[in-house]
Amino acid sequence: MPERLVPPDPIALAPVRARRLGIDTHHEPVVVLRADSPTCRAEGFEAHTRVEVRGAHGSIIATLNVLSSGTLLEADEAGLSESAWHRLNAEPGMPLEVRYAPPSEGMSRVRAKIFGSRLGQDDFAGILGEAIEGRLSNVEIAAFLVSCANGRIDRDETVRLTKAMTAAGTRLQWPQPKVVDKHCIGGLPGNRTTPIVVAIAASLGLTMPKTSSRAITSPAGTADTVATFTRVDLDLDAMRRVVDREGGCMVWGGAMNLSPADDVLIRVERMLDIDSSGQLVASVLSKKLAAGSTHVLIDIPLGHTAKVRSRADAQALLDLLSHTAQATGIELKGMISDGSQPVGRGVGPALEAHDVLAVLRNDPAAPADLRQRALQVASGVIELGGLAKGEAALLLAQAALDDGRAWRKFEAICQAQGGLRDPGVATYRQPVPAAREGSVHAIDNRLLSRAARLAGAPQAPSAGLYLDVHVGTRVARGQTLFELHAESPGELAYALDFVRHHPGIITLED
Amino acid sequence: MPERLVPPDPIALAPVRARRLGIDTHHEPVVVLRADSPTCRAEGFEAHTRVEVRGAHGSIIATLNVLSSGTLLEADEAGLSESAWHRLNAEPGMPLEVRYAPPSEGMSRVRAKIFGSRLGQDDFAGILGEAIEGRLSNVEIAAFLVSCANGRIDRDETVRLTKAMTAAGTRLQWPQPKVVDKHCIGGLPGNRTTPIVVAIAASLGLTMPKTSSRAITSPAGTADTVATFTRVDLDLDAMRRVVDREGGCMVWGGAMNLSPADDVLIRVERMLDIDSSGQLVASVLSKKLAAGSTHVLIDIPLGHTAKVRSRADAQALLDLLSHTAQATGIELKGMISDGSQPVGRGVGPALEAHDVLAVLRNDPAAPADLRQRALQVASGVIELGGLAKGEAALLLAQAALDDGRAWRKFEAICQAQGGLRDPGVATYRQPVPAAREGSVHAIDNRLLSRAARLAGAPQAPSAGLYLDVHVGTRVARGQTLFELHAESPGELAYALDFVRHHPGIITLED
Repeated sequence: MPERLVPPDPIALAPVRARRLGIDTHHEPVVVLRADSPTCRAEGFEAHTRVEVRGAHGSIIATLNVLSSGTLLEADEAGLSESAWHRLNAEPGMPLEVRYAPPSEGMSRVRAKIFGSRLGQDDFAGILGEAIEGRLSNVEIAAFLVSCANGRIDRDETVRLTKAMTAAGTRLQWPQPKVVDKHCIGGLPGNRTTPIVVAIAASLGLTMPKTSSRAITSPAGTADTVATFTRVDLDLDAMRRVVDREGGCMVWGGAMNLSPADDVLIRVERMLDIDSSGQLVASVLSKKLAAGSTHVLIDIPLGHTAKVRSRADAQALLDLLSHTAQATGIELKGMISDGSQPVGRGVGPALEAHDVLAVLRNDPAAPADLRQRALQVASGVIELGGLAKGEAALLLAQAALDDGRAWRKFEAICQAQGGLRDPGVATYRQPVPAAREGSVHAIDNRLLSRAARLAGAPQAPSAGLYLDVHVGTRVARGQTLFELHAESPGELAYALDFVRHHPGIITLED
Repeated sequence: MPERLVPPDPIALAPVRARRLGIDTHHEPVVVLRADSPTCRAEGFEAHTRVEVRGAHGSIIATLNVLSSGTLLEADEAGLSESAWHRLNAEPGMPLEVRYAPPSEGMSRVRAKIFGSRLGQDDFAGILGEAIEGRLSNVEIAAFLVSCANGRIDRDETVRLTKAMTAAGTRLQWPQPKVVDKHCIGGLPGNRTTPIVVAIAASLGLTMPKTSSRAITSPAGTADTVATFTRVDLDLDAMRRVVDREGGCMVWGGAMNLSPADDVLIRVERMLDIDSSGQLVASVLSKKLAAGSTHVLIDIPLGHTAKVRSRADAQALLDLLSHTAQATGIELKGMISDGSQPVGRGVGPALEAHDVLAVLRNDPAAPADLRQRALQVASGVIELGGLAKGEAALLLAQAALDDGRAWRKFEAICQAQGGLRDPGVATYRQPVPAAREGSVHAIDNRLLSRAARLAGAPQAPSAGLYLDVHVGTRVARGQTLFELHAESPGELAYALDFVRHHPGIITLED
């Protein structure tokens, strides 16, 4: 081998200049470098390398994409996705250094889990901390989720995961000793009981500071529906003022940093379309613990096209929920309800709001099924709140609804949140008729939700669909089964096309 | 609810125009749409939605990135990553339709696996088919890998996975009844025995049409090393001519479509830094089956910083390999070797080539450890080939090497592949001295490989490092431990910086 030595020039790698690409990649920061850039060449980076990007205001871990052709970037530029840009507090042209990411401690823990270890409290905290900070890629988060799926986290680990998820965000505290809450697992289309239950409970003197989410995969979340008739984006102080005055509220929890790890994990679960019970329990209970709830009613709709499809699954889920609730200091009451078909008539934010308002106003045309379910849930909440038991609790709920106390409380809460307004109606509507005479045998919750989403829900608040039938309804050929609502002709046409290609949305029999 | 009906205008979604972004995202196609584009608005797409993109020449499944700000695209443009562009055979401005991806059948199978099902032959074939076609995202592939890790695929499933991986690509066929091959699991730095073994085996009349890979995570793959002294990118016809004439070859298998699913899976395994034995066995044996090998020697180096770290793990891996080989019709012989430290002196393509050439030429300065290991492997291959057994096989290998037959065969193979040339030497070199007097206690294979990569290997063929010591070598303070080689001053400085911060690369003791 050669003997001559050449001492290296003291050349450090030149920094790259920040360039905002405007690409939204959610919580996973992405940085783009040119393949022929000095940095890529010197480091031997290739696509999907995990890199550390340092700027004047901090550093991030990001996934590298390599620009192999084209003129998107200059050789000394680093293109940043929106999350990379914001997390770095970047400015155009800001100098950045890009290097190999240090090994992730969180991923060491995930690998241990993949290969069969049980995880402790610190392990979960470490993994979730990195997930929230955007230091784990979606691929890594997927590995974590699968490593925990199918009972691969046991009951103790589920408790630890729940505690870690709760601790990773803000935790609200209330002066009242009892704070009641409710949650429905795997919502049915149209099953918008929450505003009714809050109104009943608060009218009876219970404290129910309800935070809800916007829809992720469904045509409407509770926050989407409530947003059609009052303000939901209250900050914590404003929320406290409403609850102090009225005993209850109906606000969007998204900006309050309640169990932020849950939001990150759920996005990746959606990409995989998986749900595992440990993750589900930790997700539900961490949000409740973070919201400061002490007593929670859990409703599990059971049905062929609902999220939970067998009584054994529902019971197992309820057992794990109860165990975890006990271990984390929440009093939990579960109910398994009928999840065989949609509830009420509207599916979509404003359309569901119309149903909710009709029930609260005791409108004779209000959907009886929605009213009945809301009363069931409310009576469970009343029991948890210690006001009455069994039949007496149900009668208490009914009385509050029938004599107008619930409606007046509802109006007062809306006023306190910023005023009550009409939810509105979509301009473009199209009835979908029965192809033949018969009686409704089944309604597919999933396909129906899909149709409502294609019509524009929840982004278009008045979009969705309005059901004219339920299971057992007898229809003539040509009679309307449901009406599609949209805010643009294009969306209406798109939903209609889907409906025409999916006659299984509503099955008729002789 | 309102009664007025507005029939929808017959508006179909306007197509978008293809725009090449030049971004390399490997096998996962990515499409970028503006958030305010009619398509995004109408479909309710958000980041990471899986979409189907249809063009004039075919359709792909891609991951959507949403452009939420900036001027990267016009409202009617769809930006395409390189893999999306090539798979669509796109041209600038070509009209494309983007819609929700249909549900993936492969992912239904992956979900079944996640939740405990055993997978059949068709299941694996379906999953791998979608992976090869780029229809599974990295997140989905990660879920598949984790669902199979830690013994969650059993022996029968490992056989099925191996068969499915083999069937998913090209399968070479050879007229000779016996085709020998070798493979080393989790290569040690510098352990470049393959060219020596091929030369010995072919010189003894065995058929050894060796296909090798380029490095993924290591400083050099066999194909990288061979490429420094002869041509390796032969097509199948050229390869056949070499093997017909000389009985052996040393070519790059990358362009031959041998077990292409393996390439896709390995990239995602790297992102997760996981290795599971079922996946590893299927990866190794599918490549051998696809290359048409009938008899394979497997070498498993065992050591604290090698891939396999305990004898029990090595034995379990060998058992699974043997079972799978038997079930797929390959005769397999395993050996467990010393994986405690690097082999030879060079680490990096050309530096390893110099060692290989020295051994083949019987250069007195040739590294004895590399020679010894090559002879061990060659004798195993000779046994498999049926020429001799035990001690006799080793003597046969030694004789072929010592009397120059192996060198002449090596020269002939290189001539047939396009000529033998000097591997070359890097311009920029820097010795790394011992910080104190002592004897070498340990060499960390992983850190050493990292240093060689940071110096530029394997992209820069003459980069890497050249070892002056092995375990047990006694050194004075200031004596050279190894010399870094680079093709640019920047890379040399970068590697040197790493070495200075990682004194554990070579541990000295009194």
